[in-house]
Amino acid sequence: MRDVAIIGVGHTKFGELWERSFRELISEAGLGAIEDSNIGGADLEAMFVGNMSSGLFVEQEHIAALISDSMGLNPIPCTRVEAACASGGLALRQGIMAVASGYHDVVVSAGVEKMTDVVDATPAIATASDQEWEAQQGATFPSLYAMIARRHMHEYGTTREQLAMMSVVNHKNAANNPYAQFPFETTVEKVINSSPVADPLTLLDCSPVSDGAAAVVICAADKAKEFTDTPIYVKASAQASGTMALHSRRDICTIDSTIAASRKAYKMAGVTVKDIDATEVHDCFSINGLLAIEDLGFAEKGKGGIALEEGQTMIDGDFPINPSGGLKARGHPLGATGIAQAAEIVWQLRGEAGKRQVEGAEIGMTHNIGGTGGTAAVHIFGRDRN
Amino acid sequence: MRDVAIIGVGHTKFGELWERSFRELISEAGLGAIEDSNIGGADLEAMFVGNMSSGLFVEQEHIAALISDSMGLNPIPCTRVEAACASGGLALRQGIMAVASGYHDVVVSAGVEKMTDVVDATPAIATASDQEWEAQQGATFPSLYAMIARRHMHEYGTTREQLAMMSVVNHKNAANNPYAQFPFETTVEKVINSSPVADPLTLLDCSPVSDGAAAVVICAADKAKEFTDTPIYVKASAQASGTMALHSRRDICTIDSTIAASRKAYKMAGVTVKDIDATEVHDCFSINGLLAIEDLGFAEKGKGGIALEEGQTMIDGDFPINPSGGLKARGHPLGATGIAQAAEIVWQLRGEAGKRQVEGAEIGMTHNIGGTGGTAAVHIFGRDRN
Repeated sequence: MRDVAIIGVGHTKFGELWERSFRELISEAGLGAIEDSNIGGADLEAMFVGNMSSGLFVEQEHIAALISDSMGLNPIPCTRVEAACASGGLALRQGIMAVASGYHDVVVSAGVEKMTDVVDATPAIATASDQEWEAQQGATFPSLYAMIARRHMHEYGTTREQLAMMSVVNHKNAANNPYAQFPFETTVEKVINSSPVADPLTLLDCSPVSDGAAAVVICAADKAKEFTDTPIYVKASAQASGTMALHSRRDICTIDSTIAASRKAYKMAGVTVKDIDATEVHDCFSINGLLAIEDLGFAEKGKGGIALEEGQTMIDGDFPINPSGGLKARGHPLGATGIAQAAEIVWQLRGEAGKRQVEGAEIGMTHNIGGTGGTAAVHIFGRDRN
Repeated sequence: MRDVAIIGVGHTKFGELWERSFRELISEAGLGAIEDSNIGGADLEAMFVGNMSSGLFVEQEHIAALISDSMGLNPIPCTRVEAACASGGLALRQGIMAVASGYHDVVVSAGVEKMTDVVDATPAIATASDQEWEAQQGATFPSLYAMIARRHMHEYGTTREQLAMMSVVNHKNAANNPYAQFPFETTVEKVINSSPVADPLTLLDCSPVSDGAAAVVICAADKAKEFTDTPIYVKASAQASGTMALHSRRDICTIDSTIAASRKAYKMAGVTVKDIDATEVHDCFSINGLLAIEDLGFAEKGKGGIALEEGQTMIDGDFPINPSGGLKARGHPLGATGIAQAAEIVWQLRGEAGKRQVEGAEIGMTHNIGGTGGTAAVHIFGRDRN
């Protein structure tokens, strides 16, 4: 396997982008990443795109070919990857594998979702759960994650205020992110008093319905410096599967796929969780951000709430989480999220994150989840190659 | 890049399988391939699944995690790949890359589609075309391919009888395939006189709506003989993109993505088209089988009809095409097709194809198309490693 680096990043504004089409969004992000990387048109050899449900959201499958066509990339291979909300993380991984294998030297991995073209996004999102055992019985994602939150409170004494802190920190960071859907701060009181969604979760515990796209250019490490002075190296790419339905779990307060993928990633990268300077986690709901803090190993099981309460996840805390604003406040266009996370870590490691910069960040991590943990992808990046 | 081999094959019956669920079908094919390969449970490291539109057909996305769960594979990584009707071919390619790269030693690549759970499959299938420029204007796949057929007849003098021969040869072969949806023979007269669909195409020019799944086990070539005496080696894996909409083509009688992918594949494998002993082509409509014969290089442009008429594509002809019965007669569960094609070639090269055996086949090829050629995947396999 060859070493691999990221040499370019593209990112659209995330939000309710009524006036922008699916193909416009992905083209802006993809061409933005290509421009940022300084590669020429002839250098690009393949593209991978993460997208959860263009079929249900915009009545279009076969989107990789559509994108290749729209971006003027034909005849290079363009491949769509789907794993619900982890689609972006898996597109990133396929791009990394394609370069590590020697099949290609330079590829783009991108993610996109256009969610606002349907009247109600909920039924489409629910197809990420086990349809026969969960969604068709009336379970939606807020309700599934609310059950996890309630159990975590019962089991470990996690408080409503601690949960709310996940959103407060996200919004604080998003206020400094020009691409964020909700670039404003909030408070614990506002989170708790916002509209109830599925008790104990309120509106401000939940990531939004978003449109958006993001892209990165991936290059063989040996060639990266031909294009950029600041390649960011991929130190690990790991993926794991877990049970689809919550009722099959050994413990609904633990996402085993996160544990499996992260432990594999730490081993591949030769690091421990203490070496990670900045992390983007999958906080589709506040409780899932809290679970990630525990399952990635930043805090012991049951102590995630305390870590949040103590401010350990803030940009100047012990282990900064979601400097971008996370899914909650940057926004969560499903298939784009895993790539947007990687884009943020690249900016952090390049030292280009402006007011949300984690000072001196050298090693960063992304954590992308599908469903309630049926899929987990964990990537580790470094400023230094070794 | 490491050499790669196929060491196991699984295949469900194709057809209108009302009594069988999505997860039953893929589990039967996947576990069948694992059993055929003689690997143990601990040997399998990852799975890739091709599927076009589980979201629209069975209201379920995130199917790779569902499949991992159903087959008892957690926590290994399981990834869905989508490229319309070429989804299977791309899942095959991702599995090959995952092993060639050294990321994994043994993986499964599979494909599945459950199309009969919706009242009308046509709108879902139409999402493989350019929705904004084709499907929303009323174009369906039969009409798009009918336009190609009419133009080919006008341009090259291709006859209705020559087109029908594609289906006749397919059905002749399918009669000897125990997995085929339509295992019976037909005639040129019956094809021409069957119900009109989109002139000049009739019902027997069109592949059916099918349920089914297929799977192969892919292994590093150096390890293959630990599991089987008859590994089939992957000599080339190539993929190309083309324009989504027909109106953007330089020539609607040529599928440029087929030309690009096949020429790349011949180069990778170090062969010419004359070296290929058995080929599975993407005959979603009779005209597309005819285009494949030309664009893969078996016949000159415009001469595909003559080749069919002269019987050159029959099992004992100059270049046997679709010994399995092809999409027309074996059936076309969209995401499963690219893998079913590979399964057939593996059986042919092992000499296990029974009454449809191409005698002494040493090198085989598969050709899988998405939409009207937005994506093409071409794979070449050999009985010998070099």
